[in-house]
Amino acid sequence: MAKSQPSPKKATRQHTKQHNARLVLKTIYDAGDVSRADLARITGLTRATVSSIVSGLLDNGLVAETGYGPSLGGKPPILLNMAEDARQLICLDLGNEQFAGAVVNLRGHFEHQVSVPVNGRTAESALNLVYELVDQLMANVTAPVLGLALGSPGLVNATAGLVKQSVNLDWHDLPLQHLLQERFNCPVYIANDSHLAALAEYSFGNHNTSNLVLIKMGQGIGSGIVLNGRIFYGEGFGAGEIGHVSVVDNGDLCSCGNHGCLETVASVRAMLRQAQAIANKQPDALLAQLRPSNDLMTWETLQQACQQGDATAQQIVSQAGTLLGTAVANLVGILNVKRIVIAGNVAGLGDLFMEAVRTSMNQRVLPKLTVDTSVQYATIEENLVLLGASALILSQGLGVI
Amino acid sequence: MAKSQPSPKKATRQHTKQHNARLVLKTIYDAGDVSRADLARITGLTRATVSSIVSGLLDNGLVAETGYGPSLGGKPPILLNMAEDARQLICLDLGNEQFAGAVVNLRGHFEHQVSVPVNGRTAESALNLVYELVDQLMANVTAPVLGLALGSPGLVNATAGLVKQSVNLDWHDLPLQHLLQERFNCPVYIANDSHLAALAEYSFGNHNTSNLVLIKMGQGIGSGIVLNGRIFYGEGFGAGEIGHVSVVDNGDLCSCGNHGCLETVASVRAMLRQAQAIANKQPDALLAQLRPSNDLMTWETLQQACQQGDATAQQIVSQAGTLLGTAVANLVGILNVKRIVIAGNVAGLGDLFMEAVRTSMNQRVLPKLTVDTSVQYATIEENLVLLGASALILSQGLGVI
Repeated sequence: MAKSQPSPKKATRQHTKQHNARLVLKTIYDAGDVSRADLARITGLTRATVSSIVSGLLDNGLVAETGYGPSLGGKPPILLNMAEDARQLICLDLGNEQFAGAVVNLRGHFEHQVSVPVNGRTAESALNLVYELVDQLMANVTAPVLGLALGSPGLVNATAGLVKQSVNLDWHDLPLQHLLQERFNCPVYIANDSHLAALAEYSFGNHNTSNLVLIKMGQGIGSGIVLNGRIFYGEGFGAGEIGHVSVVDNGDLCSCGNHGCLETVASVRAMLRQAQAIANKQPDALLAQLRPSNDLMTWETLQQACQQGDATAQQIVSQAGTLLGTAVANLVGILNVKRIVIAGNVAGLGDLFMEAVRTSMNQRVLPKLTVDTSVQYATIEENLVLLGASALILSQGLGVI
Repeated sequence: MAKSQPSPKKATRQHTKQHNARLVLKTIYDAGDVSRADLARITGLTRATVSSIVSGLLDNGLVAETGYGPSLGGKPPILLNMAEDARQLICLDLGNEQFAGAVVNLRGHFEHQVSVPVNGRTAESALNLVYELVDQLMANVTAPVLGLALGSPGLVNATAGLVKQSVNLDWHDLPLQHLLQERFNCPVYIANDSHLAALAEYSFGNHNTSNLVLIKMGQGIGSGIVLNGRIFYGEGFGAGEIGHVSVVDNGDLCSCGNHGCLETVASVRAMLRQAQAIANKQPDALLAQLRPSNDLMTWETLQQACQQGDATAQQIVSQAGTLLGTAVANLVGILNVKRIVIAGNVAGLGDLFMEAVRTSMNQRVLPKLTVDTSVQYATIEENLVLLGASALILSQGLGVI
């Protein structure tokens, strides 16, 4: 027998009521400008039930009457929509050299943005910086706060609200959700930053699917998996940790202790290291001539060299794409997911990188699975983690995503 | 906005009733010999609700009164249990050189087993063989049939009831569920055989977890993924297709059209091919001496050579384990699943094979993820697909799994 599956719980009328109230709110959120009659038709609920739920939503200000629809003979129907500024969301991204934050409305529009440089702070000091950032955001709030959500690098137990391990910030089993909740007195949600980026692309990106994987390419490589419209965290909250799957036998030592991890050969950092090594060896190479100084290789340099048709630079990029393609092949072979999205400044490399990824994937997984699979750059270019944080609040707090 | 997620549906009192009836039945199935008072306590439902539901279950025969429990002062309570022979399940496995079938009771006990040799039959002829097999099983049924479930190799759309592609049987978009339903007039469920094997190990195996991956090693290599106690099918029903993920660059051509697929280097067939090649080249090798004839290498031969400490045979086996370990590393890195189960006659190789798999996995994925991950042989040795078929019927038909 299946002993450890969480026992199903009894259903009650209270559940039915809550479920239907969320259903009406979600329908208004998705459809926008709908009448009560529309809502009854779309949800299958009676007009009386819809009216009663809408009345509650008008009372707490989440929904507003926005005007009149066309008359179908009688009185023109009153239209309802989400009151998008009725609540605000506090969103944080701790994944970069600057901690970034935003005050966001219920439609994901940014009302106010702040960022603070980390300057190598870790542990308690990094935590204090988070507090300062939230203080600054809270000072700019103009509506009741629905919740605060934060994306952190590392292993984050989203259920227990713990940062289990974030190497760069030197956090270990930090009860961040609890600490923020106590201090700021509002619902707090935390998650891994790549997981949130995937949720953002799913929720606000241009995708007609309920399953996708987003690969976040930067100094490292991480990914987030959305299945059935929800983040798939994995049992230990480490789902999508493809950056530390080994793709090169006997490759370079990685910070994780293993050799040949994807991060060591296909990340932006790895590409820049290779470009710099070549520039150092061949002072006549375009990569050497384009770099701003002898001890500095920048992403712009590598990108420019590729654009000018430099074979060496292009070789670095397509080799990274080929290796990323092995990870993509495994994602497709294991999950049979049909939408793979790549985010980060690699998008600037365009087809050169993407075609290498696709070709490699196609060579490495069952053709029957890749035939319907699209690999593409993210449709959202900026602030993916902040948007993912707002999607998490909207999902957990209101059920509209 | 997330446009394509299936819209949530309204909740009704009817749903509440159905949900609670299934909850009571599942509680009886899991707990066995419980009183109505126990059921009320475990489920949180009122005694009146429990009594009414139990009365319906007694009426349709699914539950029986089995005796009296200890008195707690007043009348001793009547105990209830699943009437395990009240319904029967028709289960089929089309994954081998014999189509196998069984009549199974509600606890997964086999009442009757039949198998018929396939002898290379395909297409219509293979379908007729399925009909014959079901006819034979139906002739041995001694209780009403709750449902029929079938595990087929290949890509199976379990929702639409279609075998999308089964290369060996030459089936393409075969509406097998509909055909069987029409012919045998009972609920029919179909799924991929590896997916069902995973469900069997989860449902009837010795695991205290709601997530596991089962790797089915045989002529090919497939896997099934159970997440939250349910088969994870993947969008195109191809989840777990690890046998056709490439693990060797520029490796041998595989039947799928790509090169270096896991199946070509780590399956039983691949190991036997390597053993035979060595035996052909070195007539003095133990592998050559142990084989039953010059043109036949058997699994028993390879296994025996390993047991007798033959370095060549052991090398073949550990290399296959190492390569399987790369697939396991990807499963762990992508899904962060903590229980990986290997099924098939490789279990006879014991630690030699398993240690190679584990070592390889540990070298290839984030140590923080493998620390809690167990890789082990299946706890159920036989009839995994047939048991998975019965678990599918019990899950879909009664909600007890």
